[in-house]
This record gives sequence, structure tokens and C-alpha cells, in this order.
Amino acid sequence: MNIAVKNILAILPENGKVAESAKDVVKETDIYIEGQRIAGVGSAPAGFKADKVIDGHHKLAIPGLINCHTHSYMAFMRNIADDLSFMDWLFGKIDPIEQKMTDEDAYWGAKLAIVEMMKSGTTCFNDMQMNIHQTTRAVKESGMRAVIARGLVGSGDDEAGRLRLDQAFEEKEAFADCDRLTFMLGPHAPYTCDDAFMRIVSKKAAENNMGIHVHLSESENEIAQIKEKYGCTPIEMADKNGLFDVNCIAAHCVQATDYDIEILKKKHVSVVTNPASNMKLGNGFAPIPKMLDAGVNVCLGTDGAASNNALNMFREMGLLALIHKGVYRNPQCVSAAEIFRIATINGAKALGLENETGSIEVGKKADIAILDLNTPALMPTNNLIAALSYSATGAEVDTVIIDGTVTMEGRKILTLNEDEIYSHVCDIIKRIGQ
Amino acid sequence: MNIAVKNILAILPENGKVAESAKDVVKETDIYIEGQRIAGVGSAPAGFKADKVIDGHHKLAIPGLINCHTHSYMAFMRNIADDLSFMDWLFGKIDPIEQKMTDEDAYWGAKLAIVEMMKSGTTCFNDMQMNIHQTTRAVKESGMRAVIARGLVGSGDDEAGRLRLDQAFEEKEAFADCDRLTFMLGPHAPYTCDDAFMRIVSKKAAENNMGIHVHLSESENEIAQIKEKYGCTPIEMADKNGLFDVNCIAAHCVQATDYDIEILKKKHVSVVTNPASNMKLGNGFAPIPKMLDAGVNVCLGTDGAASNNALNMFREMGLLALIHKGVYRNPQCVSAAEIFRIATINGAKALGLENETGSIEVGKKADIAILDLNTPALMPTNNLIAALSYSATGAEVDTVIIDGTVTMEGRKILTLNEDEIYSHVCDIIKRIGQ
Repeated sequence: MNIAVKNILAILPENGKVAESAKDVVKETDIYIEGQRIAGVGSAPAGFKADKVIDGHHKLAIPGLINCHTHSYMAFMRNIADDLSFMDWLFGKIDPIEQKMTDEDAYWGAKLAIVEMMKSGTTCFNDMQMNIHQTTRAVKESGMRAVIARGLVGSGDDEAGRLRLDQAFEEKEAFADCDRLTFMLGPHAPYTCDDAFMRIVSKKAAENNMGIHVHLSESENEIAQIKEKYGCTPIEMADKNGLFDVNCIAAHCVQATDYDIEILKKKHVSVVTNPASNMKLGNGFAPIPKMLDAGVNVCLGTDGAASNNALNMFREMGLLALIHKGVYRNPQCVSAAEIFRIATINGAKALGLENETGSIEVGKKADIAILDLNTPALMPTNNLIAALSYSATGAEVDTVIIDGTVTMEGRKILTLNEDEIYSHVCDIIKRIGQ
Repeated sequence: MNIAVKNILAILPENGKVAESAKDVVKETDIYIEGQRIAGVGSAPAGFKADKVIDGHHKLAIPGLINCHTHSYMAFMRNIADDLSFMDWLFGKIDPIEQKMTDEDAYWGAKLAIVEMMKSGTTCFNDMQMNIHQTTRAVKESGMRAVIARGLVGSGDDEAGRLRLDQAFEEKEAFADCDRLTFMLGPHAPYTCDDAFMRIVSKKAAENNMGIHVHLSESENEIAQIKEKYGCTPIEMADKNGLFDVNCIAAHCVQATDYDIEILKKKHVSVVTNPASNMKLGNGFAPIPKMLDAGVNVCLGTDGAASNNALNMFREMGLLALIHKGVYRNPQCVSAAEIFRIATINGAKALGLENETGSIEVGKKADIAILDLNTPALMPTNNLIAALSYSATGAEVDTVIIDGTVTMEGRKILTLNEDEIYSHVCDIIKRIGQ
């Protein structure tokens, strides 16, 4: 299908750079979509005939946001375990639910997550899942784009770990027909995967040209554990075991040292910061300004709903815009323009998708969120890039296009049945939530 | 008019306590409104006949939120000065706009603020304004409830300070017919009002049985200035000059010492915390957990749009729920139930309106926000009090009732013309924004 979006304000890259200077990159333009891809910005490609025209007046087009770290199946666990110590949270509440959760439950959880993400302008997410074929199935049906890693835990001499690794490849094979899905390997963390298992996973990733999605340096407790076991930081441990020799996306890095940051930069590791989750679980604030200064590719994620409890990238952008200014007592720390890049093009780079998504450019896949500007929080439209981080809630997103398909219009999801999903997740939590 | 809200989930006080235990206080009920007041909860008052029935299925009724510190006229300055040093922010951007701003501009700014606040569930706000008769006029027309302080700056021997004080009383007189409006005196801050002027204002407040709304201990720079001039903290300075001998609501208190907190508690001062503003301007994090432990009445505000850039109490509740958990590395710091009280009944207490608003109770004014629960971020409905802080964006607010009048329904403001306001504020910023 060919879509023309006419007379819309859009945030476009200039000379290949996204939002280097906030004001100039917001321009009124037309966007032309042919099949899956953006075929024209400003002028229509030769012979273009629109099957559908979207009126862009009083609207803003942004590249779809990229949520670089979540566990989407957990969406039905939101607001079930809050204001608790980490141990009570995990072992008192979350773990008992996970023990009772079926594959089908995980599938409905992922669908709920996808609805929430689409409704808040996310068009691609990076997921670590525990139940194979479930989040993948939900993504395939929904029209969403995602990168999936099967969460791996194990030790070098543990058969179960290898079995999970085999499942990751089996799943990749099973969904090879859906080009909105790509796959990474997901060694969970240095405290759940030993060094020998980490080496097995790195080797497999390198042999199969796959990226790695891992949790690193999330809590002070993790730092102490890894120091005791290996005499180094979790980031050093990951580096020593080859995780950074492939494209690696590391979630959290809250406790990263200056030397860790040097490693992350040198090995081109992308860091996903998850501000809400890191605060909610009492882990603190990642040294994001230092990472940005060092030139690390920083991207943004919500983490799972149990530790957030939302999957809304606008909320996360707002946190990122504010918290480091508070921590460093510096109002110039982490600008809104930087955050725009962090939530879009940096995420695409982290996932190896920078030629496919992350900006509104001819030749890229049409992954676009369209916001309605007729809302008091965005009025007057003084600086729309600042407004995305400082004022928007995500509810301004009116229309979502993913892979050239309109998946939401007038805030109605066209690819999934919202009411059916709400009904299922309420039933699931009634059954296994107590 | 009589309104019946039928079959609605509602957050109600139990035995006079609001949200002491999160889960139990959310109940399905009916709410009956007669004229300005709540006439029945659960059962209708004798002879009740509804003029209007609101279907409460899949909806949640909460007491309207109380924004305890803002400067609403500044709403058109949102996203015009971000990621700047404080001096560049104030003298490079905000001050030049204020110099050019007319009374009429301030009036349209206040109307924009009121639209944004209503749309995010706020039914009462505490304002410090600079242009008398403007915010007041906007409040009167809009159906909103507000407490207004004319911002006062001056010294004991300064005629201009006294003139502004006279204006505050003149305005109170002029709007005596609108019982949604009450008035406080607003000595701006210890660095803009000298000690002699503070004493004049305190005396006037005591004589007229009026409260005081003041900024205290916002920045490290203020602490240094006041220490140099008076040899004490701004909170001690305010105390010495009688500000705490009347009902006093103090904004910020970011830099409060342990001794300051003792004073605030002893003198029954209410503290308004403004998390977004304090972070955005690089001032840091107020010691809210310490204040709560000490028994200080803590309430919540957005501050003005220039230093936020939103007037959305849900956003502020979300920040409050997370930041202190990060700062103190303690996931049990500042619970969602505490935040619910902070955003509702504590605000009412701070404004001397606890018998009028701040909870859904028979006899109180009907100030109610109704949220649509059919939204992914609130699904499943595991713990709705937690959901308000951790998941909601404010856009879930569907209907707002203030003083017994429906001011918003289906997200449409019934008392103001939104498009007219948007058009005016865009024109204003075009005229005076550069």
C-alpha cells in the first residue's frame, strides 16, 4: 500500500545528523510511503499514487521510538509488587507468579505490552523473553517490529543451559518468514551465567553473526557477587568472556566504573539505560552523562512492567531529561536533543538496524509515530524536540505506522483486539496473581 | 444540578484515613452529588433525583488532584528555555519575555494552564501570580478551584512592596463573589523580600487570617546569599520573621537541613515538593523521606511551566514515586499510597481546605476526577493506587467535576474554548517569544 502523509511537521535528520540543533530539524513536509519503505520526503517519487492520504495539519511525525530493553510478557504483572524490598519483590511476588505462568499467559502478556508500546509511539522493541514462541507470536500478529533474545541462564557444564541455547536457534528458524523479527542471544547476567557458559554463548553468537543482549552491573549486590567470584566488575567479566566481541547491547550498567566506561566505548557496546526500573528497585542512577561524554552509544528502555510499571518511552524520556540534572546539579546535563537521538537512532544502531529504522529518511522502513499537537501540554509549539521529553505523555500519539502498515489510527489499534487482551490479562492475574 | 455516578470504582477514605492500606480503599460504589457537594456515597440521600447519570463501569473516581505550587500565567513559556544554565534560563530567556508580557497575555497563559490541569485531573491549584486580576479571572470563568497569592517582592522601606500588598487585598475584595477562589499572601522568597518586609507581610496575614505562600531553600545559591545576609538558613529567616505563625505553605525546601525540618514540623508548615522543577533547574532532590518521617505535611506541585514544562500532577506523582528510591537506594522509600495522600488530602490541608476538598466524602465539595480504566497502562487493574503513580499518564482522565459542575466530559473541556486558547498562546509567543 502507498501512503501519503501531507503537510505534517516532522523531525528529520539534516546532513545525516539527527537533532544536532533542536529547532531547525522540525519542518513542515510531506512523507511518501511505498510498501514497507519511505519513498519520498518533501517530494513524491516518480509515478507515486497514494492509496491512503493522512492529513498532517497540527500533527508531528517522529521516527517510531525504540524501546531497547524490556521483558514484554511481564506486562500483566504491573502494579502487583511495588514499594517492596528487592527480595520481597522478587521472591515474595514476581517469582511465584512466574512459576505458575503458562506459555499462553506469556503470549497475552506480550500482546498487552505491544498495545501499550504502540499507543505510546514505540515501533520497535528489544526483548528478553523466557517462553519461546510466545512474544515472537504476539509480535508477528501485531505488526510490531522486535528483536528477540531467549533469556539464557546456565553454567558451562550444565545441559539445561545448552538446551536453552538450542531453543534460541530453533525459534529463529521458526520465525524466519517474518522480517519484522530479528534475533539475538540473551545470556541473562554474570550472576546467572558462569564464565564458561558466557564463552559458549559468545562463540555461538560470533559463529552465527548474532548480537548479544545482556543485563550488566544493575545492582550493588551484583557487583559484590561478581567481585567475590571473579575478582572483577560484571562489565570486565563480560568483556573477558567475549560478549563484547560481537554486537552487544548491555542493559542497566548503573554501577559502571570509569574504567568500565572505557571498555564499553572501546568495544562499541551499546548501553540501554532504564531510569524508572533502576530507581524503582533502589539501584540508583546510571552514570549516563559520563557515558555520553565518553562517546558510548546510549539508548533507552523501560525494562519489564513489573519493575516500572509502564512501557511508555515518553515517560522514560521525561525521566532521562530530569534525573541527571538533579544528580549532577547541572541543568545542562543530558539535553532533550540528545534524548531524542537516544530514543530513536541510537536504539536502531544498538540493534544493528540503523539502515532500516530510527529516522525518517528515504529508503528506510516506514516506522513512524504521528502525534496530535492539539493538546495543552504541547501548546504553544515552542520547541517540539524539548516538548517530547519535557511535556508529552505518549497519549498524544494518534497514528502509528510500522513497516509501512498503519497499525494504529485515531488511537485505535488496527492489528489487535484491545478488549480481548484486557479481558485475558485480568483473568490471568486472577488465576495466578495471589 | 444533581449528579449520580453509578457503579464506579472509587478511592475512598476508611475511618477518616485516606489510602492507609492501598488495596482495601478501592471499592465499587455510587456517588451522589447535590449542587456543589457530595450528598451520598454508596447510598443516595433521601429524595435524591438525578438530573444527570454518569455510568461508572470500567472507570475509577479519585478526589481531584491538588497542584500546590504553580505560576499558571507562565504556561505559554513551556519548552522555550531548556537545558540551559540557570542564569541563561532566567535572564536570557524568561525575564525578557516577562518584561514584554501584558496582563492579557498572563490571562491567556493562565487559561492554557487550567486546560492542561483539568485534562490531567487537577481540580484545585495554589498559584503565585504577578499580574493581578488575570489568573483570578481565568479561574472564575473556567470553573476551576484555586488559591491565589499575588507575588510580593520588596523591602521594609520600599513603597512598591506595600503597594503590591494593597493590590493583594484589592483583588481579594474584587473576587469575593466567587467561592471557588481563596487568597493567600505571597512574599516571593527570602532573597527578594527583606526581613522588615517579611514582618510586614506576616503581620498583615495574621491580622486578616490569611495563609502565606512562599518559596524557601530552593537553590544552593539562595542558601549562600541568606547565610551571608542573615547568618541563618532561609527557613530560619522565614521563621524569625513570623511567616510560620500563620498557615504557611513553603515551596521547594530542597536544601532543608535536619534542623530546618524540625522547625517545619514544629510550626506546622506544609512543604510543597516540585520534583521536575527542582531537577530541571539543577537544584537537586528535596529530603522528602526525612520530612515524611518527621511528620511534616508534604504536598505536591508542578511549579510553573517554564521550569517543568508540564502542569500534569500524574507526571509529578510518577517522579515522586521513583526519584527518592533512587537517591536513597531504597525501593521502599515514598510509597504510592503516601503519594496519593500527598497529591490529594495533604494538599487540601496545606491550603486550609481539608473540610472542603481532597477526598470523596459526604459533605465535601464534589471535586472529582474520573479515569477511564480501559487503557493498556492500567491493565490489569492489580493495584489502582500504585497505578496512579507508576503507570498513569493523566490522559486517562475522562471526566472532571469541580464544585459539583462537570467541567470536562469525554476529555472535552466544557467551560473553556480550547482552540481559542491555543490560537491565542501561539500568537503571544510569536509576538514576545524572541
